Amino acid sequence: MIIVLRPSATDRDIQKLVVRIRGLGLSPHVSRGKERTVIPVIGDDRVLATVPLLSYPFVEKVLPVLAPFKLVSREFHPKTTLVRARGLLVGSRRVAIIAGPCSVEDERMIIRIAKAVKRAGATALRGGAFKPRSSPYSFQGLGEEGLRYLAAAREATGLAVVTEVLDTRDVGLVARYADVLQVGARNMQNFELLKEVGMSNRPVLLKRGLSATLKELLQAAEYVVSRGTDQVMVCERGIRAVEDYTRNTFDLNAIPVLKELTHLPVVADPSQATGKWSYVHPMSLAAVAAGADALIVEVHDRPEDAKSDGEQSILPVRFAALVKAVRKVARSVGRTA
Amino acid sequence: MIIVLRPSATDRDIQKLVVRIRGLGLSPHVSRGKERTVIPVIGDDRVLATVPLLSYPFVEKVLPVLAPFKLVSREFHPKTTLVRARGLLVGSRRVAIIAGPCSVEDERMIIRIAKAVKRAGATALRGGAFKPRSSPYSFQGLGEEGLRYLAAAREATGLAVVTEVLDTRDVGLVARYADVLQVGARNMQNFELLKEVGMSNRPVLLKRGLSATLKELLQAAEYVVSRGTDQVMVCERGIRAVEDYTRNTFDLNAIPVLKELTHLPVVADPSQATGKWSYVHPMSLAAVAAGADALIVEVHDRPEDAKSDGEQSILPVRFAALVKAVRKVARSVGRTA
Amino acid sequence: MIIVLRPSATDRDIQKLVVRIRGLGLSPHVSRGKERTVIPVIGDDRVLATVPLLSYPFVEKVLPVLAPFKLVSREFHPKTTLVRARGLLVGSRRVAIIAGPCSVEDERMIIRIAKAVKRAGATALRGGAFKPRSSPYSFQGLGEEGLRYLAAAREATGLAVVTEVLDTRDVGLVARYADVLQVGARNMQNFELLKEVGMSNRPVLLKRGLSATLKELLQAAEYVVSRGTDQVMVCERGIRAVEDYTRNTFDLNAIPVLKELTHLPVVADPSQATGKWSYVHPMSLAAVAAGADALIVEVHDRPEDAKSDGEQSILPVRFAALVKAVRKVARSVGRTA
Amino acid sequence: MIIVLRPSATDRDIQKLVVRIRGLGLSPHVSRGKERTVIPVIGDDRVLATVPLLSYPFVEKVLPVLAPFKLVSREFHPKTTLVRARGLLVGSRRVAIIAGPCSVEDERMIIRIAKAVKRAGATALRGGAFKPRSSPYSFQGLGEEGLRYLAAAREATGLAVVTEVLDTRDVGLVARYADVLQVGARNMQNFELLKEVGMSNRPVLLKRGLSATLKELLQAAEYVVSRGTDQVMVCERGIRAVEDYTRNTFDLNAIPVLKELTHLPVVADPSQATGKWSYVHPMSLAAVAAGADALIVEVHDRPEDAKSDGEQSILPVRFAALVKAVRKVARSVGRTA
Repeated sequence: MIIVLRPSATDRDIQKLVVRIRGLGLSPHVSRGKERTVIPVIGDDRVLATVPLLSYPFVEKVLPVLAPFKLVSREFHPKTTLVRARGLLVGSRRVAIIAGPCSVEDERMIIRIAKAVKRAGATALRGGAFKPRSSPYSFQGLGEEGLRYLAAAREATGLAVVTEVLDTRDVGLVARYADVLQVGARNMQNFELLKEVGMSNRPVLLKRGLSATLKELLQAAEYVVSRGTDQVMVCERGIRAVEDYTRNTFDLNAIPVLKELTHLPVVADPSQATGKWSYVHPMSLAAVAAGADALIVEVHDRPEDAKSDGEQSILPVRFAALVKAVRKVARSVGRTA
Repeated sequence: MIIVLRPSATDRDIQKLVVRIRGLGLSPHVSRGKERTVIPVIGDDRVLATVPLLSYPFVEKVLPVLAPFKLVSREFHPKTTLVRARGLLVGSRRVAIIAGPCSVEDERMIIRIAKAVKRAGATALRGGAFKPRSSPYSFQGLGEEGLRYLAAAREATGLAVVTEVLDTRDVGLVARYADVLQVGARNMQNFELLKEVGMSNRPVLLKRGLSATLKELLQAAEYVVSRGTDQVMVCERGIRAVEDYTRNTFDLNAIPVLKELTHLPVVADPSQATGKWSYVHPMSLAAVAAGADALIVEVHDRPEDAKSDGEQSILPVRFAALVKAVRKVARSVGRTA
Repeated sequence: MIIVLRPSATDRDIQKLVVRIRGLGLSPHVSRGKERTVIPVIGDDRVLATVPLLSYPFVEKVLPVLAPFKLVSREFHPKTTLVRARGLLVGSRRVAIIAGPCSVEDERMIIRIAKAVKRAGATALRGGAFKPRSSPYSFQGLGEEGLRYLAAAREATGLAVVTEVLDTRDVGLVARYADVLQVGARNMQNFELLKEVGMSNRPVLLKRGLSATLKELLQAAEYVVSRGTDQVMVCERGIRAVEDYTRNTFDLNAIPVLKELTHLPVVADPSQATGKWSYVHPMSLAAVAAGADALIVEVHDRPEDAKSDGEQSILPVRFAALVKAVRKVARSVGRTA
Repeated sequence: MIIVLRPSATDRDIQKLVVRIRGLGLSPHVSRGKERTVIPVIGDDRVLATVPLLSYPFVEKVLPVLAPFKLVSREFHPKTTLVRARGLLVGSRRVAIIAGPCSVEDERMIIRIAKAVKRAGATALRGGAFKPRSSPYSFQGLGEEGLRYLAAAREATGLAVVTEVLDTRDVGLVARYADVLQVGARNMQNFELLKEVGMSNRPVLLKRGLSATLKELLQAAEYVVSRGTDQVMVCERGIRAVEDYTRNTFDLNAIPVLKELTHLPVVADPSQATGKWSYVHPMSLAAVAAGADALIVEVHDRPEDAKSDGEQSILPVRFAALVKAVRKVARSVGRTA
């Protein structure tokens, strides 16, 4: 941590700060320049981060040196973590593909789509039983009934089941049915939920918040990992920016940056990130070329009747073509799919 | 709702759509232009909003006519709702002032600050017992112990207590101690929490999410109100934009816009919105001039030791000066404080 | 400037950097921590800013200590600069009000509106002769003819004329007719234009770019001031953020921040910042409460026929009421208007 | 264009609007719903766009049906335009690669780098002689001297020269030396410059503004094309969003969206979009997988001494490896490079 003082800071101010910092067991190194005095502090930034240094009127800026996350950092754990859930393996040379409808609508529908995506090459099934919807008047998911149908679809196909959990009270329930617990973008900083899923004994797929920085995403992942698991995937699913032809802005820079900062595997969600079925194909390929470890794709066989996200769901036949295209691009960058 | 078709849409496509819309009990009015066919649909948009019209390849755009919220709209209920909790009254001609520390740190501290803000003119006390923190290594609040201290501070001052609830499991607990339940920015779209606080028999202070639009804020408020209460305040607390001299960008346009769109009273939080104590004074005045019904301000008597948000907390003496200045500005725009 | 090295940096790397920095006449102070080596550099940051330190693979971060602008900073020149142009005086205790139509449409129109705003209390007239329009098919302004009509309106009222210049080739022309040259948001980083207006012998009203940070705005102002004039006003006119009920997001935090960072007076433009006439009144008051030195307001007497920005122009009668309200708020914060 | 009226609109209001619209030669179709009256208007939206309908107090919303650009739209001209400048061909099945330093620093340097990028597979040389820099104290480019060196580098290699023009007064000068005129992000809405380059007889590379929507980018391109040329490329170079690990957010969604909306070829700039040399490789591959017609990449053989953008420039040896990798990915998506 580096503390920059205002030009008006007096010797007494500096002394006061030095005493305070030493009291925390850290070593301040006062460096007086012509225009500013700066104080690099040797020791763990995370201790000093708890002190509101900017409330001192003589402090102008506080510049952190270390990242505010540790357990999830590649610096702490250089090798990419492999996340496993039944047939799903994320973080290896092989790009994993998770696919399925936005919501589970009925039992036959989810089994039918599960079979279709399995046939096309998916290794896990996505599908929502608890749905976070902007409007209270939209379909809110089938709840436990939906979880049962997902389990039936797993039975029928062997695919691992990835599904979202919204409420701390439901973590146990969802964990009984699902193989991977998803925490959605709107809950990325629902810290109580993060703690709870971290203790669920299930791998977690954590989506980036709508306007979260990657630092915040990794701090959220740190909440989960600090509960004792390393089975966490982080997912770029588009952020809110200026563009309105697409529902979100797919920040693909995030993929190489996350691969550099963290050992957790990185998933990309081109369906949420674009919001429109016709862009899912090219953006899936782009995500793989950028280095994503997995894709999560919305597939529906009657998108015009879908109870949610029909406009961004692709047909099974298009999904099959997408898997083939993903394989080609994966090979071109030295991976498989 | 207005549906715009692509130039390539055929008569059969149009027919298909017309049948579908009629099947929902709505009336489509096909209007063929030289460049596009548009279909205004008479009837409640909210029904049609559930159909993923954009998944039809021949649909180019869907333009909503009505707002996606109803119970919270001023159109539905033209008079501003008064929210009451003990001495706190929000929505009247008098601008209410809620003040207190970011976190409850110990019993003496919260009582001391409660007395100070009461003396200066506050009508409610804020203070966090459950704290949503970006890092798992930051102070997470005293929990129920903090709630007890808040109740003691209310006892000592008569001030209504406003405090945040983070977890659906804690709503009952927090409602036993607090007069107003706050839902923070990070939980604005934690829909399960919104439903739960809507059934708590306590007024709710709902903060705008970090990158939420006002439409989304009002949809979130609709979740609460649809549970049977109208005792909801919406709060502008700064959004994420390009600027980095301040922690957030205080979107004061939101105040007149919200006053136009909703009958719920509108609160402004200049502490969160600026992130820096020295800007709290001018931005409080600006919020009142823009038409805010209440302010919520962070006050701490030893900000350099605060366990959270010390850098944006003002001293009690500055708060007293702020209340005086707020009164002057309130009078200048035909209100009191 | 503080340089943070990667953990992998070797002694040789450090040595290489130290030699380079000394070669620039600066003093590096190597400070080795357990987790990182940091190198505060004593001396003028602006020299080091020209060296691409991040291109060294062993450099992790470069943290600037000083602001990247100097002449415009309050640190360099503590007293607020007064900008003067005929009757217009900006930067004093009195809040100045600049008003007029978006575009000059014809001679009678601009004279009529100039008289109306003068009568209501404006001290300068705004009006565009060269208009930057998103579409090539929109009205582009009357050009020199418009400038002549502005001069006629000045003749008729004594008001100072503020008008935009878009092209380096037109600076001389516009300066012959206008009292203040405006550089619009879209040209905030048109650096050649900034240099040119800096040499025009006319005060400059510089608007913040659509997504410019305040640092960038002040660097743009530095371009103008570095040409030898201090007669520059900076103007907050709304930035692009998530909200879409309003055309832009009015970042009123910018006002106290700019007042702290720069000695240049600060103008607020509630018309551009909201994009809607009905919000201009409350947001003008908010800007004054926040500390703005001047307002610039769009006024039109037949907004429904305006050739540009009719939807955000207020009627003369509403403008007169606004001036009265501004005076009350100004008095409540210890100023006049 | 569809006009939505407020519930309070009277029959007289509707009549007034109908008369006005008919007066413009357009046909309004009044459609009265229970909650709102909407008026779809048959005819060219672009005429109605010039009328400030929102200034009528009884108009609630105006919803455009047609895009605000025409000549650049794929609807107007379905086939992708080929842009040609010497050996550079953009818009064909072959992905073009433009490479070179950010700035021309001296003659030997630009010739040396031109030879290196040519050898590696580039078909055009980039290099700035006029540099738009945030600070007046940064290197501003060599001006005409730089243009001469670029011409010498073209002489030595046969590569087409792409270089930026900043000022309307320099368009003729730059056009004498360069094969392609670049308009940078900061000048995307410098409309006078757009008009001037549109009449220069040189192809234009138009970069997306820092917070421009794609609609605005295409309106800017429309300015150029409306001057009589179709030789325009549009370039995604990263936009400003929340993330700060990277200099900008690379909006790769823009590529398929632009390919759908416009017949102009689409270029991607991974150097500007990431701001860091180590991310240029993966993001170049992602851009090609997403469908970019060309890449523009910053290459420098001594990045640590570069006068601008050293931190995002890659070494010639890395560029050679990148070209090979681009070829593989291009083939995997059915193209060449």
